[in-house]
Amino acid sequence: MVNHVDRETTLCISLAARPSNHGVRFHNWLYAELGLNYIYKAVAPTDITAAVAGIRGLDIRGAGVSMPYKQDVIPLIDSLDPSAERIDAVNTIVNTDGELTGYNTDYVAVASLLRTHGVDPSLPVALRGSGGMANAVVAALADHGMTGTVVARNHQTGPALAQRYGWDYSTEVPEGAGLLVNVTPLGMRGEDEDVQVFSDGEIAEAAMVFDVVAYPVRTPLIEAAERLGRPTINGGEVVALQAAEQFALYTGVRPTDEQVIAAEEFANRD
Amino acid sequence: MVNHVDRETTLCISLAARPSNHGVRFHNWLYAELGLNYIYKAVAPTDITAAVAGIRGLDIRGAGVSMPYKQDVIPLIDSLDPSAERIDAVNTIVNTDGELTGYNTDYVAVASLLRTHGVDPSLPVALRGSGGMANAVVAALADHGMTGTVVARNHQTGPALAQRYGWDYSTEVPEGAGLLVNVTPLGMRGEDEDVQVFSDGEIAEAAMVFDVVAYPVRTPLIEAAERLGRPTINGGEVVALQAAEQFALYTGVRPTDEQVIAAEEFANRD
Repeated sequence: MVNHVDRETTLCISLAARPSNHGVRFHNWLYAELGLNYIYKAVAPTDITAAVAGIRGLDIRGAGVSMPYKQDVIPLIDSLDPSAERIDAVNTIVNTDGELTGYNTDYVAVASLLRTHGVDPSLPVALRGSGGMANAVVAALADHGMTGTVVARNHQTGPALAQRYGWDYSTEVPEGAGLLVNVTPLGMRGEDEDVQVFSDGEIAEAAMVFDVVAYPVRTPLIEAAERLGRPTINGGEVVALQAAEQFALYTGVRPTDEQVIAAEEFANRD
Repeated sequence: MVNHVDRETTLCISLAARPSNHGVRFHNWLYAELGLNYIYKAVAPTDITAAVAGIRGLDIRGAGVSMPYKQDVIPLIDSLDPSAERIDAVNTIVNTDGELTGYNTDYVAVASLLRTHGVDPSLPVALRGSGGMANAVVAALADHGMTGTVVARNHQTGPALAQRYGWDYSTEVPEGAGLLVNVTPLGMRGEDEDVQVFSDGEIAEAAMVFDVVAYPVRTPLIEAAERLGRPTINGGEVVALQAAEQFALYTGVRPTDEQVIAAEEFANRD
């Protein structure tokens, strides 16, 4: 991948304790494809306060924010978009003439996918997970008019997440769930990659399956849902859409679906 | 010009009120030529304190410092290399694990050129100019064992510069100067591009001519010196050598003379 740099080039960055190559490859590929004079650089800051000062001081247009900084940056910026305010977590900072605004494009992406997939708001949800991304997903589901059960083994974060949105909490998947959602790392490449988060029986009873895991896109859960003929929303869609949202916030240019898919393919090739 | 960006890429920047494309083109061309995973970006900061905080906070390896920040950055960094301490001006900041050190590669480059051109330290110098670059040049000449006269129309900065290094001050070029040095913008592309800073008579009396103007390299002064058979040091040599010094400080790799010339040619092509 190659990008042009001159004195007019606009810089965007990511802030993560352990940067991946995904954002760097996704954004730089699209900059080149669309002929935009931008570059995107991954940063692993040692001090998040100094890093956010650097966004202002070096006139950096935008910053992707990953774990563990999504809440730490809130007191360091000037204002929150409703997407970030809703879930008290920022994954995108936009610098407009020194004014830093926090967004959450995970929330925006999930909310958008629920609409475009025509998810029936009356389906009872069973959602596994209770971390930061689960918070974004439950908020988007609730704002889509849905209610349900947070299924989590963690007796602190599970009940807290459920209570925040007026949902139920359980350690077990309840009977009669219409939409099954996975926001745990189970099924992700690594030691738990063979785990199917919901059983065949649970999937057969449901109307739809949503897995936020993106690496790989075809998790055991997604494969089981397809085998059982249930429609799915997969993590690749979430990652691509949230990155496209970020891209549009930084550049003012909204890539087409085809461009996002091609950038996503490039980003995942290694 | 094309440069690769991934999560390992090291970022260097320049800080200038009005960034030129020179540094961006010079450094990025050499990064590509030498296969180094670096990119170089020009920044026009609105607040130099915040910009230096950004060097620390975003783990930026190095920063070129231009007007008007060469002295402003001194209280903001951790230590000064002797090259910067000698002239109380920083044109290069190197970040080593969060420790920022200031260098002056203009001083280093001029000192090096005086040695490689075998300049006789006993020649009396007549130097026109009294700005920041004149300060670096007089310091290097003095440290080469030379003395002489600062010739300047400015009755504040001229005498102050002369006094600092124990030189004489005059508004006129003295008789018997052996080395003529121009550190004014006279002869530079623009409204004064046709001005020959020293007369044919002064050049004929001198042993050597040094013009710091780099754009163009062939100033009226350099052309007159060649016409009159006097050896020269030109501003292109200064610019290239100081940039090569910067490059070596950032990357640990010292480009060859041929690589520096090629990078310089690329940087000046537009």
